[in-house]
Amino acid sequence: MSLDYGLIAVAGALIGLVYASILLLNVRAQDKGNPRMVEIADAVRQGASAFLNREYKVIGPVAAVIAILIYVFIDMRIGSNGAVAVGFIVGAALSAIAGYVGMATTVRTSSRTAQAARKGLGSALTLAFRGGGVMGMVVIGFGLLGVSLFYLAYQNVIISNPVVIAGLGFGASLIAMFMRVSGGIYTKAADVGADIVGKTEAGIPEDDPRNPAVIADNVGDNVGDCAGMGADVYESFVVTSIAVIILGALVMGDKSIPSSIASLITKNELLVYPLLLGVAGILGSILGGFYIRKSIKKNPMGELNIALIISAVIAIIIDFAATYLLFGTSNFGYALFASAIVGVIVVIAIERVADYFTSYKYKPVKFIAEASQTSAATNFLAGFSTGLQSTAPSAVVLVLAIIISYYIGYTVSGSNALIGVYSTSIATMAELSLTGIIMSIDAFGPITDNANGIVEMAGLESGVREVTDELDAVGNTTKATTKAFAVMSAALAAISIFEAFQSTVNNQIQASTSLMAKYHLVAGQSLSFTLTDPLVIVGLFIGGLLPFYFSSFLIQAVGRAAFKMVNEVRRQFKEIPGIMEGKAKPDYAKCVDISTTAALRELAAPALVAVITPLLVGFVLGPLALGGLLIGSVVSGVFLAFLMTNAGAAWDNAKKYIELGNYGGKKTPVHAAAVMGDTVGDPFKDTAGPAINSLIKVLNTISIVFVTTIVLFALLV
Amino acid sequence: MSLDYGLIAVAGALIGLVYASILLLNVRAQDKGNPRMVEIADAVRQGASAFLNREYKVIGPVAAVIAILIYVFIDMRIGSNGAVAVGFIVGAALSAIAGYVGMATTVRTSSRTAQAARKGLGSALTLAFRGGGVMGMVVIGFGLLGVSLFYLAYQNVIISNPVVIAGLGFGASLIAMFMRVSGGIYTKAADVGADIVGKTEAGIPEDDPRNPAVIADNVGDNVGDCAGMGADVYESFVVTSIAVIILGALVMGDKSIPSSIASLITKNELLVYPLLLGVAGILGSILGGFYIRKSIKKNPMGELNIALIISAVIAIIIDFAATYLLFGTSNFGYALFASAIVGVIVVIAIERVADYFTSYKYKPVKFIAEASQTSAATNFLAGFSTGLQSTAPSAVVLVLAIIISYYIGYTVSGSNALIGVYSTSIATMAELSLTGIIMSIDAFGPITDNANGIVEMAGLESGVREVTDELDAVGNTTKATTKAFAVMSAALAAISIFEAFQSTVNNQIQASTSLMAKYHLVAGQSLSFTLTDPLVIVGLFIGGLLPFYFSSFLIQAVGRAAFKMVNEVRRQFKEIPGIMEGKAKPDYAKCVDISTTAALRELAAPALVAVITPLLVGFVLGPLALGGLLIGSVVSGVFLAFLMTNAGAAWDNAKKYIELGNYGGKKTPVHAAAVMGDTVGDPFKDTAGPAINSLIKVLNTISIVFVTTIVLFALLV
Repeated sequence: MSLDYGLIAVAGALIGLVYASILLLNVRAQDKGNPRMVEIADAVRQGASAFLNREYKVIGPVAAVIAILIYVFIDMRIGSNGAVAVGFIVGAALSAIAGYVGMATTVRTSSRTAQAARKGLGSALTLAFRGGGVMGMVVIGFGLLGVSLFYLAYQNVIISNPVVIAGLGFGASLIAMFMRVSGGIYTKAADVGADIVGKTEAGIPEDDPRNPAVIADNVGDNVGDCAGMGADVYESFVVTSIAVIILGALVMGDKSIPSSIASLITKNELLVYPLLLGVAGILGSILGGFYIRKSIKKNPMGELNIALIISAVIAIIIDFAATYLLFGTSNFGYALFASAIVGVIVVIAIERVADYFTSYKYKPVKFIAEASQTSAATNFLAGFSTGLQSTAPSAVVLVLAIIISYYIGYTVSGSNALIGVYSTSIATMAELSLTGIIMSIDAFGPITDNANGIVEMAGLESGVREVTDELDAVGNTTKATTKAFAVMSAALAAISIFEAFQSTVNNQIQASTSLMAKYHLVAGQSLSFTLTDPLVIVGLFIGGLLPFYFSSFLIQAVGRAAFKMVNEVRRQFKEIPGIMEGKAKPDYAKCVDISTTAALRELAAPALVAVITPLLVGFVLGPLALGGLLIGSVVSGVFLAFLMTNAGAAWDNAKKYIELGNYGGKKTPVHAAAVMGDTVGDPFKDTAGPAINSLIKVLNTISIVFVTTIVLFALLV
Repeated sequence: MSLDYGLIAVAGALIGLVYASILLLNVRAQDKGNPRMVEIADAVRQGASAFLNREYKVIGPVAAVIAILIYVFIDMRIGSNGAVAVGFIVGAALSAIAGYVGMATTVRTSSRTAQAARKGLGSALTLAFRGGGVMGMVVIGFGLLGVSLFYLAYQNVIISNPVVIAGLGFGASLIAMFMRVSGGIYTKAADVGADIVGKTEAGIPEDDPRNPAVIADNVGDNVGDCAGMGADVYESFVVTSIAVIILGALVMGDKSIPSSIASLITKNELLVYPLLLGVAGILGSILGGFYIRKSIKKNPMGELNIALIISAVIAIIIDFAATYLLFGTSNFGYALFASAIVGVIVVIAIERVADYFTSYKYKPVKFIAEASQTSAATNFLAGFSTGLQSTAPSAVVLVLAIIISYYIGYTVSGSNALIGVYSTSIATMAELSLTGIIMSIDAFGPITDNANGIVEMAGLESGVREVTDELDAVGNTTKATTKAFAVMSAALAAISIFEAFQSTVNNQIQASTSLMAKYHLVAGQSLSFTLTDPLVIVGLFIGGLLPFYFSSFLIQAVGRAAFKMVNEVRRQFKEIPGIMEGKAKPDYAKCVDISTTAALRELAAPALVAVITPLLVGFVLGPLALGGLLIGSVVSGVFLAFLMTNAGAAWDNAKKYIELGNYGGKKTPVHAAAVMGDTVGDPFKDTAGPAINSLIKVLNTISIVFVTTIVLFALLV
């Protein structure tokens, strides 16, 4: 019986992948534009493919070594039939594939979107949205496929030892972190470098073909915003799914749950329920996407919002069907369904918050534009404080989601805390189930950004740039939304994963009298992660530090690489005669090479910090400190991430608002100040901010994978 | 017998205050300089006094109302003889006095320092250091006096109900927060406004008398960096002292401590021990200060460091005497003494970290200066990432201090956790005992900053500015040190206060069967602040949010006020003929008024957030969430504070490094970029960053004051 439900999930995943193929064929059938546009698009595509190939050659061997270590030190020790190592490989491989396919689609969509923009807003919007849709469906399709197949293959192992599925999450999040970090450094080294010399010093427009860094900049959009974001959202979906599955297995093994509920969950219902929510999200995303049509004339953000809400409503309806299928008309089923609704509302709520703080229709961005009148410094301060401010409503959404979803499960189960947490994890899963539509709306951003570049470089007729510019501004907001979406899921998933972490720790300790003695516990007493324990506090501080320290590497890497890029562009402007008159061609390859080299070299330090710190804390200070670290990293990480992603998008759109002619428009000191703010915001929003999500997930999954070993070998309790 | 020890503390406090008077007389005996210098100094002094008087008129009534509320709702209910309300009033009054006296001294020292700078570095250094010494001694003298007298008056009440002493800390921290916030907004509105128009647009030097905002800028240094910092460090000292006293009282009431220790603490030794550490710090600070002499010719930072180390060594020796006096040759005494040494080492360690990240002798600041070559944006990114990076070594110091000091107490007491925390609190107290010398080194900064202004405005001969500039750069680093010092103490004290908080909660619940039922506890079971509880998690998130949200108000306030200031200065440059030629006098008063009005008006929102949030969380979500909030605010707050204060100082010194002639020196685009970074760093380091310390302390003390009421009336558990 439960096998059937798992197959439904596989079928749902395949529907998503088939739909992605249909969209892709549709996109490829569109007009690619004139030869100049094709030439530019090809150059960008080749650069992006070359970078990803080089990157995979670097991280492939690393992943292989880790897989072997996992097999030897985890699988062979716990007798899990290779499940953890296999999960790691599957998770990592699908992460790499999702990133690659996403990138490959978006590079192919951008010249076509530029061409479509010549026909009007609706055509460009529809095409970019479909290109994004390919990526969205690939991400959620592969995510759901991987988790479902793993579940079908290893369900008995999972039930007896739930954390074996964590390998899948660790593989997904490790590769996603690599791609996020390297992609983020690549794209912003090029972007910042290009902007500083091009826009600020030479006074040439963005994406001007005379700028030697322009191809690198466009490649960056694809490897950072598309491949990096795709891998990132994919791992969010996977990690959240496995968190729910682990919790479901823990609930199944909990002897204290009321019999009315116990009788409902005899056939792995709690494990397949999240997978069916994923299917609901895929179907909702497909159907909601049909709302975006060529006839749209204005307010693209509003139209995308409507599509999102339609998807959400459809998903909720299918969620209800799934709930009924598994739990009938029980109160328990209704409660879980209510939690799923909470999760869907979270998506809409954070979307509204991100829109308010990052769109130039509202006060915050206008405030930044106004502050640009008095210098780059006041622009910085206005943007930074806007980012700080945006943390508050985001936190309110997060806190309400936790409290409401928890108490729904807690109350329906007669005060069972584990079911409370399971209920929260269902809200998280319902949030992530909308990945398809969210990614469609998001990847739309870099596609139009690239289309914008092609419009400029190919020197298309006036009027086209206005269309792509308007869509690009919307893209800034939707990118901020997706980042908030991913970070929110990281915060919510961390609660579930922490529950799994501590219960694994305690089950292991309880099973051995020598471990009980080692941890100073008497029979029946469990290790409590309480705030009065100094190791928990120390762990919280170390965890709280990590997002700050990790970000320092990324921003510094961008700064260093941008510095080199600026000097290279300045050199070319000086040494290549005729470049400014458009008579000589700049050396694009040199700039691509600077970005590529920087991205791969600068990856090592932050990646090591993310991987080594939890292991070091776990093995030296023990599971209490490691538990503190997991929560501490979320407590500071979510706010740092909200700050950086919202401030970055707000700066970008404040600049665009001025470019629309406000405060004097382009080529004024006000615009120059806004360009500076946008430049600072670039690594905030596209490098450091989004990487925090991957960081949190890596910390979570690596800790879960190594928890049993850590409990055995920790030096200090 | 114990009364005697309390009297030793009073005597020590009086020694500090007497020494402050001697230093003050010495300072006042120095040459005030020529009539022009006196005129400027008088204008600054009047502006600063006028602002503080206006501010006290605003916050006085607020404090009075709170005192009455405390008396009615806390004192009358718990029968504490008015101790909480009296403590609140004493704490608040001394905070206001410490700020006022500090400000009054520094305004009087600056013109004399400018005059002394004409005689050479050593003379100026010695005088500024003595001026700072007045402030340092006033702060620690009043701090110790207040706590000691309160202890002498209420020791029996404290022993039966330790949290009554929290009123003293609440008063001190509330007023300190008001002064920090308003002073910080005042000073940076003026500074940022003056710099943007003066240095960047008009191209006139800093502190040029033609700049209409110059007097406001100098007033700001005094009300922000002197009065604000004085009140802030005063409350750090007070809050830390009361945290140790509360913990000492809890240890005295703990029946599980070994009899070997119980026999040593029959006469309130644990309560007076922190006070005697304070006396040791006062004596160490006085004696170490003698090292600073007029014969010093170069490397002022190195000389100040040596003075600090001498003070630290002397304090440790006297700490040993105090330990021997109270605990004889017991292992317990040695253990506490070892913790005190840990605390003293913390001061030296964080001083080294702040020096490394903010002094232009080292790589980080040089990296920022180098990055200024490619625009304000790269300068900004370099500074911001440097600030992020500085959080890591600071965290290492913090974590090691917690672990080592805790395990010292835990081990010597045969695994008593409460004594472990007491031991950590002793380390914190030993750290804070060096307030005297730390403040001398710190207040030295704004004094030379003001002296610098007077040198410029009075048009003193060349060569003098070089002396004051060099000292000013050192002042930037020492200011960063003091902020790190204050934040570190907030983090350490928060652990002690949390222990007091949770034990008060549990004692109260255990004493009533109806409360036991309300909190779903059975006899002998206590409320556990565990990370698996969703309310604790929600509290952690709300706490983690607060430093971010609170900072947003402060930075936005500075941005808004600076915007007005810039427009006013631009207006005066345009409308007052002859102003740029030095023929017409600018309207200084208008700029002073903009800062004053902004500082007082913008105080309300952040102050309300700091006061209302913990009460709301406590009364609605209950003590579990409030406990989470306390720890969450520290976990994110310390790193945000380190980031902002270190980045701010690093930007300032990168600018100074360029002004020394590096990368082309003044009047180059590189310098302009560095000025932008410095301008952004101003509200980071002098408004938002340091205010986080006050925020954390207010959250802590208000929660302790209201904890018993919250336990009774919380809506949700």
